Amino acid sequence: MAITVVGSVAFDTVETPAGRRERCLAGAATYFSLSASFFTEVRVIAVVGEDFGSAEQAVFDAHKVDTTGIQHAPGKSFFWEGSYLENLNEAKTHNTELNVFAGFEPKIPSAYHDSQFLFLANIDPVLQRRVREAMPHAKLVGGDTMNYWIKDHAENLARVLKGLDALLINDTEVRMLAKENNLVLAARKVLEMGPKALVVKHGEYGTTAFFGDRSFAGQAGSVTIPFRVPALPLAEVVDPTGAGDSFAGGFFGYIASQPTLTPAVFRRAMFYGSVMGSFAVERFGTERLQNVTREEIDERFNLFKEISHLEYATV
Amino acid sequence: MAITVVGSVAFDTVETPAGRRERCLAGAATYFSLSASFFTEVRVIAVVGEDFGSAEQAVFDAHKVDTTGIQHAPGKSFFWEGSYLENLNEAKTHNTELNVFAGFEPKIPSAYHDSQFLFLANIDPVLQRRVREAMPHAKLVGGDTMNYWIKDHAENLARVLKGLDALLINDTEVRMLAKENNLVLAARKVLEMGPKALVVKHGEYGTTAFFGDRSFAGQAGSVTIPFRVPALPLAEVVDPTGAGDSFAGGFFGYIASQPTLTPAVFRRAMFYGSVMGSFAVERFGTERLQNVTREEIDERFNLFKEISHLEYATV
Repeated sequence: MAITVVGSVAFDTVETPAGRRERCLAGAATYFSLSASFFTEVRVIAVVGEDFGSAEQAVFDAHKVDTTGIQHAPGKSFFWEGSYLENLNEAKTHNTELNVFAGFEPKIPSAYHDSQFLFLANIDPVLQRRVREAMPHAKLVGGDTMNYWIKDHAENLARVLKGLDALLINDTEVRMLAKENNLVLAARKVLEMGPKALVVKHGEYGTTAFFGDRSFAGQAGSVTIPFRVPALPLAEVVDPTGAGDSFAGGFFGYIASQPTLTPAVFRRAMFYGSVMGSFAVERFGTERLQNVTREEIDERFNLFKEISHLEYATV
Repeated sequence: MAITVVGSVAFDTVETPAGRRERCLAGAATYFSLSASFFTEVRVIAVVGEDFGSAEQAVFDAHKVDTTGIQHAPGKSFFWEGSYLENLNEAKTHNTELNVFAGFEPKIPSAYHDSQFLFLANIDPVLQRRVREAMPHAKLVGGDTMNYWIKDHAENLARVLKGLDALLINDTEVRMLAKENNLVLAARKVLEMGPKALVVKHGEYGTTAFFGDRSFAGQAGSVTIPFRVPALPLAEVVDPTGAGDSFAGGFFGYIASQPTLTPAVFRRAMFYGSVMGSFAVERFGTERLQNVTREEIDERFNLFKEISHLEYATV
């Protein structure tokens, strides 16, 4: 079933210990949609500038991503410049230019309205909410956010959280949102804010899903019995940007590809999310996601079983 | 088969957000031997002072731990005082009194000589090596160390590492030992120093085992295909002291209880290690390990499968 994502399509200039790359095609919605495209039909809502040309369009086309919802505006696309020279876990931002994103008014093409899955990538919670309300048919809604919105736009964010099925954020964001240092207690508080599931990204240590008391995903677990998937230890992380969005794409893409959301589907989705995240960081920007094959994805899925399961014969 | 452990038997005064406890029975060899005692016969080599009385002896006796190798010396036992008030992941040491441990000369009772398993807990590498050489029948030798020995006793430590089957240390220690920040590259370097397996403890994120190229544990994996076991997220960590030693006890205890070291045994041992670590931190000192039952251990083993496996029907 189709999944619609709203978020940034952008250009990034990134410097890491592996080198420097100028203006790679990036942005949360780009990582998400390329990653999800291996599993299901994807539709994007975003805005780009005149620097988004046929080469960039071709990347989406090659993955059969529906870009009807990408608006083209005069000016330049969202641009971010950052480095990970001392710490691969945390980006140092050198420059952020909102450009055409400053006046972004999401418009939802009528062909998107039947999307049963919706992902609200990390943008202004006011826009997240507007998109969510414009798509009442979405039966499963996921979302991301970041420290900036948690800190200075708490009320707007609270309204978004109320309507979420799954919130995907990192450790620091969970603790900041809950104002609580213990992860289990923090997860409990965040789940009380609305999301039925909380997926916490731990970077190189993997990801943990916590569940509220309400029925979700066939009661896959709880706060005290969460589900954890490891990350793959890599000898070289070329560019950590987009790992979380790629996780989200694999996770929601796989769920959307399945007839019903059972605990088993949720668990496999967590694994596919981690698989897609592990590919994303192997090259700069979205380069690796542009070239990875479904065969490689399933091979790595089996590798993830091998590094985490007591018995791991590939099935 | 019997496992011999050499290390500290001590008293700890600990303060954590959960409270303060004076002079609890602690020390690496205590955590290790209580934890391992649920799986196999355990023998301890250590030294205690006159403050180690019948109450402390009873704890070892209740777990059928052989204490023939615990020397009783005039003076006080090793004492450590610390707190985890701001950060549960790192202890702040307020006081360390070596006491009788200052002149510790390990003596190995003749009844210990047939031990096929040996664990060298975190003590001076000179003593670790002496014990190892005095026990030539040990067919599987594990060891721990810490930043102090890595930094200031590198040559002595290097000699110990050459003879180890498995080294169990934490992330920071691996990176310090290898002088390398990337975990996979650091693991490769540490494995080149001698250990056949490197078990890296990540605290609340679990544990990862890396393997060298040489045959070990039926080639359970490699540097690039490690094995990861999660930690159990806990709503309250009462006292993190001894989690690593309890992991080591469950890990080696389970291995020692099995007829051969296969990849499946190694994996189950990692799970039992994580299980024992999760119990240890639920109470101050060794309190929880003193009272846990084998039934609770196996229940939690199944819980660890549930939080990490795609299919988790208990077996």
